[in-house]
Amino acid sequence: MPEQPNVAPVRGMRDLLPPECELRDWAVGRILDVYRRFGFARIETPALEHLALLTGGQGGENEKLIFKVLKRGEKLDLAAAQSEEDLSDEGLRFDLTVPLARYYAANQAALPQPFKAIQIGSVFRAERPQKGRFRQFTQCDIDVIGEAGEVAEIELILATTEALAALGLSGFTVRLNDRRVLRAIAAALGVGEATQQDKLFIALDKLDKLGVEGVLKEAAPLLPTLEASERLRELLAAGSGSELVAQLSEREPSLRAASGAVDAIVAVLEPLLAAVARVEFDSTLVRGMGYYTGPIFEISMEGAPGSIAGGGRYDRMIGRMLGREVPACGFSIGFERVIGLLTERGAKAPRAGACFALLYEPGVDSLQRVMAEAAARRGAVEGNTVAVFARRRKVGKQLDDLEKAGFDCVLTLPAGNGPPEEKWLSGAASG
Amino acid sequence: MPEQPNVAPVRGMRDLLPPECELRDWAVGRILDVYRRFGFARIETPALEHLALLTGGQGGENEKLIFKVLKRGEKLDLAAAQSEEDLSDEGLRFDLTVPLARYYAANQAALPQPFKAIQIGSVFRAERPQKGRFRQFTQCDIDVIGEAGEVAEIELILATTEALAALGLSGFTVRLNDRRVLRAIAAALGVGEATQQDKLFIALDKLDKLGVEGVLKEAAPLLPTLEASERLRELLAAGSGSELVAQLSEREPSLRAASGAVDAIVAVLEPLLAAVARVEFDSTLVRGMGYYTGPIFEISMEGAPGSIAGGGRYDRMIGRMLGREVPACGFSIGFERVIGLLTERGAKAPRAGACFALLYEPGVDSLQRVMAEAAARRGAVEGNTVAVFARRRKVGKQLDDLEKAGFDCVLTLPAGNGPPEEKWLSGAASG
Repeated sequence: MPEQPNVAPVRGMRDLLPPECELRDWAVGRILDVYRRFGFARIETPALEHLALLTGGQGGENEKLIFKVLKRGEKLDLAAAQSEEDLSDEGLRFDLTVPLARYYAANQAALPQPFKAIQIGSVFRAERPQKGRFRQFTQCDIDVIGEAGEVAEIELILATTEALAALGLSGFTVRLNDRRVLRAIAAALGVGEATQQDKLFIALDKLDKLGVEGVLKEAAPLLPTLEASERLRELLAAGSGSELVAQLSEREPSLRAASGAVDAIVAVLEPLLAAVARVEFDSTLVRGMGYYTGPIFEISMEGAPGSIAGGGRYDRMIGRMLGREVPACGFSIGFERVIGLLTERGAKAPRAGACFALLYEPGVDSLQRVMAEAAARRGAVEGNTVAVFARRRKVGKQLDDLEKAGFDCVLTLPAGNGPPEEKWLSGAASG
Repeated sequence: MPEQPNVAPVRGMRDLLPPECELRDWAVGRILDVYRRFGFARIETPALEHLALLTGGQGGENEKLIFKVLKRGEKLDLAAAQSEEDLSDEGLRFDLTVPLARYYAANQAALPQPFKAIQIGSVFRAERPQKGRFRQFTQCDIDVIGEAGEVAEIELILATTEALAALGLSGFTVRLNDRRVLRAIAAALGVGEATQQDKLFIALDKLDKLGVEGVLKEAAPLLPTLEASERLRELLAAGSGSELVAQLSEREPSLRAASGAVDAIVAVLEPLLAAVARVEFDSTLVRGMGYYTGPIFEISMEGAPGSIAGGGRYDRMIGRMLGREVPACGFSIGFERVIGLLTERGAKAPRAGACFALLYEPGVDSLQRVMAEAAARRGAVEGNTVAVFARRRKVGKQLDDLEKAGFDCVLTLPAGNGPPEEKWLSGAASG
């Protein structure tokens, strides 16, 4: 016997079974519906991008995780190849934001102004595989390009909160900060140089993981004085409070200006979201990506640690490709996280009609009659499902299997030309 | 000024603009709805597969078009690399059928029996770019695994025809043949050896492109006698007629048996599809892939050359992975082809509600009021779209742009607290 091939998916990737796909399709449909009703429009970019684009410094740590595609034909000179650059000039996208910036630069003449984009698609990162983390996963982003004012942040946050609510989730907290607030705080603590500030933000971003003392330890080498360390401790202890920001801003006018933008967004959102979400200024919120330039925000949910959506303003990324500055702001739902939460809670995609199994006797029932009856029942109610199965010898076992598979009713054809006989399965609502 | 990066998509791939995405999403939704109501369930496999799987001989010419992914970390030893095999062991899938066979082998215990799968997803082929052909494109397949009888072919053809009709297309012809008919014809012509037969089929498959004389020229070296050439000419001239098959089957009993399977399928389908499609036995139909073992079929459409869907039975592919034979049969809609036809015909995704643009005066209108009015209008009718825009100085130009962008009505906020004022754009149905 020949050797059996390896039938497992490639390392770190996965096959999706029918119930998983059904839930995901339903969630995508709900999210798309909300986003479209806010005036966003879906776009798609290729899975592959030029490596020069993917390694342009906007992807942070993700740039180390790129799946690179081997050059082909004459472009591939194996004997002369000295480095990976000689072997590859395209790679699989690791996020949807870097491709979006390229897309906007390439297609701006055909796009409305401002441009409100939806992207839902696969991204690829060659991370060390671990539970719940996959090397191919779905991202779900909306972005507003060409709007400098806070109306962009406000629409993104309203639309994303409503999309999450449309999935049946609740108990949201929207937390906001501003990269300029963080820079002003860093300056107030005596850390003036931008790359040093970035290191301080990376330390702050670990507050969830390391706690206050851990962050202080990591930040200490960056801070010029012990007094600065004490001020940082106060800030971290205050958590989401804005009092300390108010105090610090006495000394640092840029902090007052920056926090004003967040205050304005919070003031608009609070009453609009009162029924579904708390909205708060959190001066310790950092967000990982280096490209943010202004407001940053996250949504978290009661009973679910961490965040389920995150985003912010990145006014300079598109300028790097286009040669002129274009303001941009985006918000991303943690799609895999949200699907995980829905699955834990036993969420199921609702069905429109009933689900019928039509059993026939192979060689006895005419397939033409079988198919005609299936079509009639399918058409009788919008959304009815009718699947046709050969009757097995052990009908009892077959009925059990069909019930487990989610069928509501079994149809069989009587001798003669009468209508199908119905047998509603227990647990199903009868006709 | 720094050099502008290349913002075009990678060679042979494309960006999809909002109207294209909307049409594609609508088409996918319609197709999925029909397939689900026939009892098919969607699954997903990763974009990457083991190269050993992709180059197992089931992909024909497509195996030469694989995008291979560079190995990573310690697995990549550039200095010692002698060949592409040393550099890569994973690649992007070139179709959905080879991954489906792997998926079934890996997940069979969790799948219903028979298993009726829907797959809609991207596949990748490094073809020479040409008009209307892309290196990443969408395939749209249904497959029945574990059903040996013709009920599988019948359901696949009914579901696919109905899905195409649900897109507003019509004038279908379903053509059927059987690989066993082709083998019997080849045998009757004196070509007995399987690889010689395959070469003959490849020649037959070019009938559309080369015409009768071209095919005869290519087939001549394979045929043992001039008489065989003449018989082939008659067969090709008869086209879809089954008379010649009937004649040939006098001499070749295996041909009679094989054509009986097609006859049975045609007999069931003809009356069921009478309103939407002609159904015919076409003994010259070949279908490109080598893995077919039984009935093969295509759907063509009036006014559209070539086929818009194709499929067949491939009973031995899964056995190669599983070590035991599992019957399988699939049908694939030429999704890109169909989207092209819909676009040519000016098809547009229908919308549920009306599409409003709410214009506000930045710095004058309160954003809280703007957003609350937008939300109220969005919620007033299921499916209403409300997008918020800052009023531009040249309002006339802005209204033109909004109308072109598909908005039905412009809303503005009066001073005081009254409801928004409506201005319905010409061409739109008023309130």
